[in-house]
Amino acid sequence: MSDHESKKVPGLLMVVSAPSGAGKTSVCRRVMELFPDIHFSISVTTREPRPGEVEGKDYHFVSIEKFREMIARDEFVEWVENYGHFYGTSKVTMDHFLERGCDLLLDIEPRGAREIKKHYARAALVFILPPSLAELRKRLANRGESFEVLERRLNASLSEIREATWYDYVVVNEKLEDAVERFRAVYLAEKSRTERCAEKIELFLT
Amino acid sequence: MSDHESKKVPGLLMVVSAPSGAGKTSVCRRVMELFPDIHFSISVTTREPRPGEVEGKDYHFVSIEKFREMIARDEFVEWVENYGHFYGTSKVTMDHFLERGCDLLLDIEPRGAREIKKHYARAALVFILPPSLAELRKRLANRGESFEVLERRLNASLSEIREATWYDYVVVNEKLEDAVERFRAVYLAEKSRTERCAEKIELFLT
Repeated sequence: MSDHESKKVPGLLMVVSAPSGAGKTSVCRRVMELFPDIHFSISVTTREPRPGEVEGKDYHFVSIEKFREMIARDEFVEWVENYGHFYGTSKVTMDHFLERGCDLLLDIEPRGAREIKKHYARAALVFILPPSLAELRKRLANRGESFEVLERRLNASLSEIREATWYDYVVVNEKLEDAVERFRAVYLAEKSRTERCAEKIELFLT
Repeated sequence: MSDHESKKVPGLLMVVSAPSGAGKTSVCRRVMELFPDIHFSISVTTREPRPGEVEGKDYHFVSIEKFREMIARDEFVEWVENYGHFYGTSKVTMDHFLERGCDLLLDIEPRGAREIKKHYARAALVFILPPSLAELRKRLANRGESFEVLERRLNASLSEIREATWYDYVVVNEKLEDAVERFRAVYLAEKSRTERCAEKIELFLT
C-alpha cells in the first residue's frame, strides 16, 4: 500500500437544499458536469419508478419489506414517510464512498439535512436561495397552477427558507452561471481546508 | 439611513502567509486584479522607503517616535522589530475598513497571523505552499545565491511551513493560475457563509 493510500483523506460531503423555485436541480446538474468526480448520493425509496426514472441513477427502488429491514439494521442516516411512500439516505452507502475518498453531493430537504449535520460534522451544507420574493413568486407562477396551489407552494418555500439560517453557506440563484460559480467556489474552498491538506504540508516536514 | 446601511456586514479579512519561494506576491497581485474591491492592508514601518516604494501603497512610513506612540496607544494588533526597524499592523486602520464593509487582504508572516487570529476570529487564514520540496529548492536556487545562503533560506522556509497546520486553508502554488483560482474560491466561499448572508435570508422572512 502506498503512503498516499494509507492516509486517505475521507471524501467531502456536500449537502444542498433549496425551496421549490430556487433552481436547485439546474445548479446541481451543472456542478456535476464541472466536477465529474463528485458522486451524486442516491436516495432509497419504496415508491414506484416514474416513467424515465432509472434504478441506481434517480433512486434505489426497494420494496417496503426491504426498507423496513434497512430501518431495523439502522442503515439510514435519515428517513421519512411521505404520502405512504418511504424515502431514506443510506448511511452505509455514503460511508462506503466517503471512506474511499469520494466526494458526495446529497440533495435533501432541511429536515434531513439537520440529521446529516449531526452525523457528519464536516459536511458542507449549502442552501440555494431565489434572488427575491417577487422572483420566487414569478418562478412558481410560471408553473401555471391555480392561485390556491401557488400560495400553498409559496408558503412551503418560505418555511423551507426559514431553515437556511443554520446552513453553512448560502448561494443566491439569480443567474444560473453565477450560482454555479459560487457553489463551485464552496466546493474548492472546502477541499482546500487545512485538515484536508495535511499530506501536502507533511511533504515538507519529513 | 437605508436598511442596507443600518445592518452593514463587516468586511472579510483574508490573511495570507507563505514561505519565501511559494510565489505569494504573484498570487496576491492577481487576486487584487480580479477583485478590485479588496483593499490591501498596508503595514506601518520605521524603515526608510526603498527606491520606488510609495507611502500609503507599499507601507506607511513613520518615525520611531510616532511608532512608539502608536504602541503606547495600543494601535497595533501586532508589531515586530527586525534588524532595528519596526513593522506593525494598525488595528485602528483595519477596523476602519472592516466596519465599513470593506474586505481586506493582509500579507503577514505566521507569528503576526497568529495574533490576527486571536483578535479577528472570523478572518480567513490562507497559507500558500510551494508544490514540493524539490521545487522550493529550485525556486530559491534560481535567485543565484551561495549554497550557504540557499540552505539558510530553505530552512527558514521550512520552519514557516511548519506553521501551516493551524491556518484555515492551504493553497498549493504549482501553476499560478490554479493557485489564484483556489484563492479566489476561498474568498467567494467565505463571502457566501451564512453569517454574511443574513440579509439575503431576511428578504423572505419579513
